[in-house]
Amino acid sequence: MNRYAMYHATDCAYCFPVSEKEIVLRLRTARGDMKRVQVIYESKYVFGQTQKRAVMRKACSSELYDYYTVTLRLTDTRLAYIFYLESTDGDWYFSEDGVSKQYDYKLGFYNFFQYPYINRADIMEPVEWMRDAVFYQVFVDRFYMGDQKKDRSYINCAWGELPKPKSFAGGDLAGVTEKLDYIRSLGCSALYLTPVFCSHSNHKYDIYDYYRVDEQFGGNEALKKLIREAHRRGMRVVLDAVFNHCSEDLPQFQDVIRNGKKSPYYDWFCIFGDKPDPEKQNYESFFSCPYMPKFNTSNGQVQQFLADIGCYYLEEYGIDGWRLDVCDEVSRAFWKYFRQRIKQCNPQAVIIGENWHDASASLRGDQYDSVMNYSFTKACLDYFAAGRFNAQQMAWKLGELLMRNNDTVNSMMLNLLDSHDTHRFFSEIGKDREAMKAALCLLYLFPGAPCIFYGTEILTQGGYDPDCRRCMDWEKTKSGGGYEEIARLLKDLAAIRREKRTTEGVVSPEEKDGVFILRNRQQNRELTLYINRTDRRVDVEGVTLNAMSHCITENGGIIL
Amino acid sequence: MNRYAMYHATDCAYCFPVSEKEIVLRLRTARGDMKRVQVIYESKYVFGQTQKRAVMRKACSSELYDYYTVTLRLTDTRLAYIFYLESTDGDWYFSEDGVSKQYDYKLGFYNFFQYPYINRADIMEPVEWMRDAVFYQVFVDRFYMGDQKKDRSYINCAWGELPKPKSFAGGDLAGVTEKLDYIRSLGCSALYLTPVFCSHSNHKYDIYDYYRVDEQFGGNEALKKLIREAHRRGMRVVLDAVFNHCSEDLPQFQDVIRNGKKSPYYDWFCIFGDKPDPEKQNYESFFSCPYMPKFNTSNGQVQQFLADIGCYYLEEYGIDGWRLDVCDEVSRAFWKYFRQRIKQCNPQAVIIGENWHDASASLRGDQYDSVMNYSFTKACLDYFAAGRFNAQQMAWKLGELLMRNNDTVNSMMLNLLDSHDTHRFFSEIGKDREAMKAALCLLYLFPGAPCIFYGTEILTQGGYDPDCRRCMDWEKTKSGGGYEEIARLLKDLAAIRREKRTTEGVVSPEEKDGVFILRNRQQNRELTLYINRTDRRVDVEGVTLNAMSHCITENGGIIL
Repeated sequence: MNRYAMYHATDCAYCFPVSEKEIVLRLRTARGDMKRVQVIYESKYVFGQTQKRAVMRKACSSELYDYYTVTLRLTDTRLAYIFYLESTDGDWYFSEDGVSKQYDYKLGFYNFFQYPYINRADIMEPVEWMRDAVFYQVFVDRFYMGDQKKDRSYINCAWGELPKPKSFAGGDLAGVTEKLDYIRSLGCSALYLTPVFCSHSNHKYDIYDYYRVDEQFGGNEALKKLIREAHRRGMRVVLDAVFNHCSEDLPQFQDVIRNGKKSPYYDWFCIFGDKPDPEKQNYESFFSCPYMPKFNTSNGQVQQFLADIGCYYLEEYGIDGWRLDVCDEVSRAFWKYFRQRIKQCNPQAVIIGENWHDASASLRGDQYDSVMNYSFTKACLDYFAAGRFNAQQMAWKLGELLMRNNDTVNSMMLNLLDSHDTHRFFSEIGKDREAMKAALCLLYLFPGAPCIFYGTEILTQGGYDPDCRRCMDWEKTKSGGGYEEIARLLKDLAAIRREKRTTEGVVSPEEKDGVFILRNRQQNRELTLYINRTDRRVDVEGVTLNAMSHCITENGGIIL
Repeated sequence: MNRYAMYHATDCAYCFPVSEKEIVLRLRTARGDMKRVQVIYESKYVFGQTQKRAVMRKACSSELYDYYTVTLRLTDTRLAYIFYLESTDGDWYFSEDGVSKQYDYKLGFYNFFQYPYINRADIMEPVEWMRDAVFYQVFVDRFYMGDQKKDRSYINCAWGELPKPKSFAGGDLAGVTEKLDYIRSLGCSALYLTPVFCSHSNHKYDIYDYYRVDEQFGGNEALKKLIREAHRRGMRVVLDAVFNHCSEDLPQFQDVIRNGKKSPYYDWFCIFGDKPDPEKQNYESFFSCPYMPKFNTSNGQVQQFLADIGCYYLEEYGIDGWRLDVCDEVSRAFWKYFRQRIKQCNPQAVIIGENWHDASASLRGDQYDSVMNYSFTKACLDYFAAGRFNAQQMAWKLGELLMRNNDTVNSMMLNLLDSHDTHRFFSEIGKDREAMKAALCLLYLFPGAPCIFYGTEILTQGGYDPDCRRCMDWEKTKSGGGYEEIARLLKDLAAIRREKRTTEGVVSPEEKDGVFILRNRQQNRELTLYINRTDRRVDVEGVTLNAMSHCITENGGIIL
C-alpha cells in the first residue's frame, strides 16, 4: 500500500459534526489502493476495551487519491477512532501515529484519532435557503435603467456602447426591480448585486458612505423597494460588502488626511508616516490604487464600524446576506467577529467570501459560509475551453474540490462560470453553444448554488474588465431573439434542481468511456448528467451520446 | 518524484505569519526525494509578470517525509507563491492544482498558493515568558502540608502511605509556598497546580465553588500568598481550569435538580428529561461519573460564567495562565470566546490545553496557546521505555511532531514525561537512571517548556492514578538522600536552557550511527544533545559515547 498518500485529520473537512449525534469522517488513500476501508470507533473512555466497526464508502477520486467517507450516528459522542485498511498488499491500521500492522488499543488514548464531544455551538449550521437558490449576478450600472426621471448628467456612454473603465451607462436599482419578473422567469431565485453604496466609480467598489445608496442607483428608497419586491416574489438579495478598502473620500480617511496622527481615525488605515498622501502612496490601498485606501481590520473600532454596517442592512433592509469583497486580504479575526454579529442578527443570512483559492481554513464554521467557487470556474475552463482536461481529469478535479471542504460548506458554495472579474465564459469557449449548455447543466447540478452573471441567458460575450461588463442587450431577450433555448434551459435546470435533485444523497463526479458523469443519487432515484466532449458517439449506461453532446437522465430515462 | 507525498496548505502550520512583514512557509515532500526546493513568490497582483525565488531549508524528516521551510521577509505582504522542486527525476512545479511540468503564471490567480495580506490581528503572539519557563507540576494534596494548625479531620491517610482513590494526605498551598525556594533551587521557574477550588475530592476536579479556594488547601488567602511569594521570586503560577464539568453540588446544578426545566440553569447542563437524577445518570457527566455533571459550553451564559472565572483570577490574584482540563470535550466556540476574554485581561497569560492528541486545529491562535504534549510523552515512552523506537525512529517522530504546529505554538508547548494522569516515567523505564537522565536532557532541550511532575527529582515511582500521586518523600530530598545528581542535573539543564539554548535558531532531531541527536543551532553556536541507547560504544562527530550514555556539547565541547 502507498503510505505516503494516507491522510486524515480531525476537526476539519475530514471530520465534522452535522448534528449533535452525527459526525462525518473522511479518509484519503492512494487511488485504487484499497479493497475495503473501515473505521473502528467507540467512546474514548471504552475504546481500550471494546470497539465498533463501520465500512466507509468511496465518495470520489482525484488523479492521485481515493476519498472514503462514512456518517457515524453516535450515542456517546466522545468519539475515538482509527481506520482499518484492507489494501492490495494486506491489512493495516491507520492512527495518529500512521500506518501499522498491529494496533494496541490499550495505548489508544495516546494515538487514536478523536473528536471528543459534539457541542451544539460547534456544528456548522447550513443556510437552508441556499440549498435551492439559483443566483443571478447583476452589475448594476450595466443592467437596466429603470428610473427615467433621474439626473442623467453622470451618464457618459450610450446604452450598448462597449464599456471603458470609466463608463457610466445608467443602470440602477429601479431597473433591477422592474426586471425581477424577468429574472424570476429564468428560474433564478436570488440576486447578488455588485456594490450599491455612494461611490465615484461605475463599479462602486470605492465607497465613501456605507449608509447611503448611490443616487445614480436611486438612493436608499430604491434599495428598500427592490428588496421588498424581491421578497414578495420569494427571491433573496445578497449585497456586496466592500470591507477591505474604501474610497479616499470616506470622512474618516479625510480626517486622517487633515489631522494625521492626531486624528482618532489614524489607526483605522495602514499609514506609513505622519499623514497619508495619495501622491506619495504612503499607505496601503487596494491594488495599489491610492483612491481606495485599505482599512486596518485589526483595529477594534474598524471591526465594529464594519460589522455595524453589516447588521444595519440585515435589520433595516432585510437583506439575505453578504458577499465579501477581497475577503482574503481582510483579517481573519475580523471575519470571526463579523460572523458572530451577522448570525446573531439572522442565522439564515449567508456569508459568501471572495477567495479564488482553497479557502478551507476560513470555511470551518467561524468565518464565511462559502466562497465564490473560482476553483470550479477554473476546472470548467480547463474542460470546456482550454482542452487541458479530458472527462477523467475533470471528474478527478471536481472530486478533489468536493473534498476540500465539509458537506455543509459544499452545499452553500457559490458556483460560477464567470463574473465581473473574469472574461465571459461564452467567449472563453469560443462561442460554442453546445459546450455552453453542457457547462450550464454541470453548474446547476454540482453541489452548491449556481450563480449566473447577467446576460448569460443571451450568451453575452466579452473579455476581461471592462469588456465583461457590457450593457445588457434587452433586444436579444425578446421572442425571436435567438436565445430562447438558453433561457428555456436555465428554467428547466432550475426546475430539475428544485424538484429532482437531492441535497441529502450522494454526488459523485465520474468518467466512463470518455464521458464525464455527475451522479446525484438517493434511495430510489438517480439524476445523472452525461457530458461527451469527444468527437465520437458513445453508448454509456444505455444512453447514446453523440459527439460533443450531453444529457440529463432520471433513473435512466432522458429528461433533458 | 513521489507526488502522493506532496503537501502544503495555507493559513495553518504550513503557512503562518510571525510579524507584519514575515511569514514562514513549510513544504512536505517524500523523504530523500528532492535535491533542492525553492519557493517562487511575489505580491499577488504582479505574480503574473514577475517572481522572486528563495531556497527552502530542510527543517526535519519523519519516516516518510522531508519538511522544508523558509521565512520570507516581504515588503508587500499580499503573498502569492508556488514551489519549484528539483527532484531526483527532474524539475517540477507545485501549486494548488498539484504537481506539473509547466506552470502558467498568467493564470496563477486561479491556482497559486496565497496568504494575501498579513493583518496584525492574525499574528499569533507568543507568551514571552514561556520561552524560558521550566514548570514544576504540583498535585497539592500530596506535596507538602504547610499549615500545621488547620482542621485535619479530613485527612485519612498517613503521609507516605500509598494513596487510594479517596485518600486525603493533607498537602496544601501553604506547603507549596514554603517549598518555593526548594522548587526554585531545582531550576524551576513556574508552577502548574492541579485544581485548588472547593471540591469534595482530593484531586478537586469536581468543583462546587469556583470563587473559593478549598479550606483544606488554606482558602483564598493561601492562594494569594502563594502567588505573591512566587512572583517575588520571579516565578509564574498556572492554575487548572476545570470548565468541562463541575461538582453535582455546584449551586446552579442543585437548582436544576430542584426545579428541573423551570430552573434558569436547566440549559447550563446537558440533561435528558425533565430533571437530572444522579441515580438514573440522565445527564452528561465527565467519565460517566454522575458527581461531575458536564457543562453545556454552547450556552452563552455558561460561556460568560466560566470566562468570568478565568478573568477573575487573572485580575484579582494575578495568576499567569490557565491549564484547561479536558478541553477537547468543551466547545471550540467557548475556547475562542475564552481566549479573547483572557488575552484582553493579560496578553501574556498562557492558555495550555489538555488534549492528548494532534490539537493543531485548536492551535491556530484563536483557542489555546499550546497543549500538554502527551505526543512527546508517548514518543519518549517508545524510545526510552518500550523499545519500540530506535534513535532513527525517535528522530523521525519528533520531527513529525514539530511539523504539526507552527513555531510559535512549538515554543509554548508544555512538554512532559509524566503527570497525575499517567504512570510515573521512572517506573515505565524500569527504574533505569541513565535512561531517566537522558530523557530529562531531551525534555529540557526540546522546543517548548519542560514540565516535571513533583518528585521527579527524587525519581518517584508509581503506576496509574492513584499510584502516581504518592506523597512527596521529603527525606529523599535531603543531602545524602541519594538523588543529588538528579536535582543537580535539573538545575544544570535549566541553566543551559536559559543561557545557551536559542529560541530563534534551528532545532532538528536527527540520527547518526544509531545515536539520537538534537541540534539547537544559531549563527555561531551549536548546542547538541547526543543519546546513545545502543549497547555499544559509538564515536560520532568527535564525541565518544559509551553504551547507554548521553551528553550535551557546545560547539563540540562536552558541557554536560
